[in-house]
Amino acid sequence: MVKQLRAARTREALVLAAAETFADDGYALSSLPAISRRAGVSAGALHFHFPSKDALAAEVESAARRSVEERVAVRRSSATSELHLLITVTRELLVAVATDAVVRAGFRLSVDPSRKSGTDFGRWWRTWVCEQLLRAQHQGELAEGVAPDRVAAVIVAATFGFEVLGAQDRDRIAPLHADQFWSLVLPQLAARSDGFVCAVPPAS
Amino acid sequence: MVKQLRAARTREALVLAAAETFADDGYALSSLPAISRRAGVSAGALHFHFPSKDALAAEVESAARRSVEERVAVRRSSATSELHLLITVTRELLVAVATDAVVRAGFRLSVDPSRKSGTDFGRWWRTWVCEQLLRAQHQGELAEGVAPDRVAAVIVAATFGFEVLGAQDRDRIAPLHADQFWSLVLPQLAARSDGFVCAVPPAS
Repeated sequence: MVKQLRAARTREALVLAAAETFADDGYALSSLPAISRRAGVSAGALHFHFPSKDALAAEVESAARRSVEERVAVRRSSATSELHLLITVTRELLVAVATDAVVRAGFRLSVDPSRKSGTDFGRWWRTWVCEQLLRAQHQGELAEGVAPDRVAAVIVAATFGFEVLGAQDRDRIAPLHADQFWSLVLPQLAARSDGFVCAVPPAS
Repeated sequence: MVKQLRAARTREALVLAAAETFADDGYALSSLPAISRRAGVSAGALHFHFPSKDALAAEVESAARRSVEERVAVRRSSATSELHLLITVTRELLVAVATDAVVRAGFRLSVDPSRKSGTDFGRWWRTWVCEQLLRAQHQGELAEGVAPDRVAAVIVAATFGFEVLGAQDRDRIAPLHADQFWSLVLPQLAARSDGFVCAVPPAS
């Protein structure tokens, strides 16, 4: 039992160290020895858990996705509409990118030209945004003529753009970015009749 | 004279080959031998023109910037307002990213974590967008309460996001992305009195 717990902690430390390294230096320059050193773990232990850098990157992408999925589940219970959930999750994602190396690395790996095979997190986020807009449309929350797939492309581009541009004071400006984006976009997106949703809901 | 012309052509071929390589593989994985081979130029000729990979990347970023500056100069003469110029240049930039390896590499290098020193093109684009919004504000073209620096952050993030997300059919979808973005954002951005500018101007 103690052994299992220790193995789980080692694995977690490796995923975090890998995420930090990938996000800082890009996939190509990240070396397994540097990652195991950062995690305080032996090279043998790293290879026991992850046979390759690619496997480690895939696990970072999966962990990023699970992290955002958990946030979505929590927010869903208090969201007043599908559009409200989309806005809340986008804001939370931009904050997570600033404060959580795993989510940040998920974004980074999705668009890293030196990692050809992995786009799991980016693809998942794009699909989620598109499906969420379809749910909003189904509930009559979108203005007439709004095409969910095209609007999804704009939302996904903006979230990726805010991430890659980055900033020193990420955690301070991330929510401002999200609010600025929604205050520009929402009035065109939301059904006119649905007055309350035309203002960006306050952060909770 | 022939010698000078040949030197200029060699330099141009090297910049193009470097841009294609940086955009495809990222800065870290791009090697000088691969770039000189792609340009059909000897390793000695490459080193004569560019002492290092960093110098070559800096030249690609400068060339990207000059390319966009030239487009801005051409568009300025036919633009009907400062906001119109901003919209036209953004659309043109997204098309250029699809069709011009140098502009694409300019974007890529600006956000490549494996190239620590270079952000020349990205910084220039951000500054240009912000100054253009200030000019629009000065001309009374912006709605009341619009903060040029914050809106600039959204526009710059979206353009970077569209670029890094990429697509196979870039040249076909790039203008659609630009139009979708502006049709969402412009009604909030433009002064209400300035009716004609509230619709995205047709591509010229």
